[in-house]
Amino acid sequence: MFEIAIKNGLCLVKDRFLRFNIGIEGNKITYVGKEDIRGEENINATGCFVLPGFFNAHTHSAMTLLRGYAEGLPLKEWLEKIWEKEAKLDERAVYLGAKLACVEMLKSGITCFADMYIHMDSIAKAVEETGIRAVLGYGMADRGDEKRAKEEMRIAMDFIKNWSGKKRMEFILAPHAIYTCSPEFLAEIARIAKEKGIIKHIHASETLWEVREAKKRYGMSPIELLNSIGFLDNKTVLAHGVWLSERDMEIISEKGASVAHCPSSNLKLSSGIAKVAEMLEKGINVCLGTDGAASNNLLNLFTEMRISALLQNLRRKFLNPAEFLRMATSNGYLAYGINGGMIEKGKLADLVIMEVSHIHQPLYEPVNSIVFSSLGSEVRDVIVDGRVVLEDREPIYFELEELIEEVRLLLSFDYYYEKV
Amino acid sequence: MFEIAIKNGLCLVKDRFLRFNIGIEGNKITYVGKEDIRGEENINATGCFVLPGFFNAHTHSAMTLLRGYAEGLPLKEWLEKIWEKEAKLDERAVYLGAKLACVEMLKSGITCFADMYIHMDSIAKAVEETGIRAVLGYGMADRGDEKRAKEEMRIAMDFIKNWSGKKRMEFILAPHAIYTCSPEFLAEIARIAKEKGIIKHIHASETLWEVREAKKRYGMSPIELLNSIGFLDNKTVLAHGVWLSERDMEIISEKGASVAHCPSSNLKLSSGIAKVAEMLEKGINVCLGTDGAASNNLLNLFTEMRISALLQNLRRKFLNPAEFLRMATSNGYLAYGINGGMIEKGKLADLVIMEVSHIHQPLYEPVNSIVFSSLGSEVRDVIVDGRVVLEDREPIYFELEELIEEVRLLLSFDYYYEKV
Repeated sequence: MFEIAIKNGLCLVKDRFLRFNIGIEGNKITYVGKEDIRGEENINATGCFVLPGFFNAHTHSAMTLLRGYAEGLPLKEWLEKIWEKEAKLDERAVYLGAKLACVEMLKSGITCFADMYIHMDSIAKAVEETGIRAVLGYGMADRGDEKRAKEEMRIAMDFIKNWSGKKRMEFILAPHAIYTCSPEFLAEIARIAKEKGIIKHIHASETLWEVREAKKRYGMSPIELLNSIGFLDNKTVLAHGVWLSERDMEIISEKGASVAHCPSSNLKLSSGIAKVAEMLEKGINVCLGTDGAASNNLLNLFTEMRISALLQNLRRKFLNPAEFLRMATSNGYLAYGINGGMIEKGKLADLVIMEVSHIHQPLYEPVNSIVFSSLGSEVRDVIVDGRVVLEDREPIYFELEELIEEVRLLLSFDYYYEKV
Repeated sequence: MFEIAIKNGLCLVKDRFLRFNIGIEGNKITYVGKEDIRGEENINATGCFVLPGFFNAHTHSAMTLLRGYAEGLPLKEWLEKIWEKEAKLDERAVYLGAKLACVEMLKSGITCFADMYIHMDSIAKAVEETGIRAVLGYGMADRGDEKRAKEEMRIAMDFIKNWSGKKRMEFILAPHAIYTCSPEFLAEIARIAKEKGIIKHIHASETLWEVREAKKRYGMSPIELLNSIGFLDNKTVLAHGVWLSERDMEIISEKGASVAHCPSSNLKLSSGIAKVAEMLEKGINVCLGTDGAASNNLLNLFTEMRISALLQNLRRKFLNPAEFLRMATSNGYLAYGINGGMIEKGKLADLVIMEVSHIHQPLYEPVNSIVFSSLGSEVRDVIVDGRVVLEDREPIYFELEELIEEVRLLLSFDYYYEKV
């Protein structure tokens, strides 16, 4: 008798779909196979795909509050409007925004996300309450000020101390970028991360401007700079990586660092199209992120898989669709050192049950259907850490309608003039 | 008393969202305003957007049968696999494929589509049965053979004769492209179209290869060639238009022709990114299409709006999101000379009722939310020609499950080995 048995679904096991039953005990998958198992809770997955949980490898969850706030503007004006608004976000706002993000992610099959932002206690609280898994870090920037560097590090470490040991939470050190953090500060972060075994997450090579600035200031690319101060190892996740040179990719591959690819955001902010095919060729672990909702505007990895695949096609790089499914699931778990993202005995029970819909038909090969013709709204149930957190499209641990009403009241000044 | 009253929705009226009631009599909108109207049938649209119907301005509907069939392949190998399969499609196959397309389109708010393909009687039958509106034309190609040109024209005209006068159907002359049709044949089509007042639809400037071939063979761009033989006027819809020169755009604008922009397909087949911003600047009527499901793989204009907007951003062309909503609705109706695509008294009652979802929140400006953060699965009810054809996400006039089972049996040889 298992705690949960998922029965008769088409399960993604090592890139193939097989009709299997899955048994869960505690927070782990303890059985995958053909036997007719039973659970205290039995989930009928007939007519459904069963997928490993999706991992959103780069986001700023509370930026849901800024979704759709500043559209149709060029980057500079867009940023000004966003920053002005962001400066006003307090703890309660970030809490509500993160919670809105958590529900959107769960409803589209994301079981874990990596977040760097401000007011991290609020985000941790949202994670705790919604039942999702997360990897959290305070977004640090010293801007060359030694005193500020110390203070930023203190905030980051205090946050980790306060929440460490909590269920479904891991922690990262998350300096913003090489153009907002000094090399000395980044080196210090790398030192502490190594000492304590913490994973590091940083924006890198997002825009051509960033690469040019690095060359001007340091005579090196952002990746070469990070490498020169010992920042790169297999506990490093680089967000974006749009403008990587051949040499940059070789360094990343050699050091075993991961890249969190964010295709929609890179289009929206005119950053560019990442060389995913080349990164994979070089053996880099590429995972997939949505970035914040202000630059996406969704938090949905089905959309990201499809856009990423379409963009690589545009570049005449025709990858096997299975690559994108791995990027969205197991590669994210791998990047952040969490034992999930695969349907396999012993892995964390982070699982997604998704209806096979008319848009997947005809079903020549389920992997193709899922990557190129899913919206994410086909997700029916989600299990995180061995616990059902979304059932029949409804979150279990809180009221969505109430949350939306709270967000509306919070933003009432800017909000659309009529309640919907 | 109206036949149908749609009440209390946020209605898109001239690019703005207002809380209005809408009255329908026969196949027309006969009231838009604040009065508390009543209908024989009353639809409560509280918590919903009410949008004009979406117009899929370029597709090959029955290609749903080839969705996901040949992924991860470069163009040439992709085409070989697709053509081999397409050659085997018979009338029944096209009928089932078109029907699968109709349901997908209705479920994502498409009320009308323009189709060029083979076995057009089967497609017309699917349109008749599902309740959608369509503009249909047999896809003609003479390949420089005069006899074949005559035969192609006969098939096209017979199809129009057989179905003309049927509800919710208009007809077009649809030569495939300048590289599959001779200039003489295209000129003859233009002559007949003018004489009979029929709209023409052709693939044009889809790939760089096509433009180079035209220059080599004719010393002109595809658009210049079409112009030189009198093919371009305000009853012409050009599919794709990815590789238009400044001069091409000026010609199209001057002649009043429309362009059916298909962003996902242009990515998938490595064709390129269309210059939407420049076309709009020049006053060209740009509408939006999905192309066939084999090169998309969805038939969903919400996806196309979002991708189109993201791609223009990548090009640093920051358009007002309202432009994309017009492209997906009124511009399509305008291109094909059908009196719909707007919520206005006297227009055809082709309407979409769509839930305001958590992914649209917070609602700073509904247009932004709809363009950048809709999936299409939020569509609840669809009215075509004054008749409810989708209610609470279910098609009214046929059984979706039965249809999918028929498709599965049809394709059983290639189909995924287990019934889902």
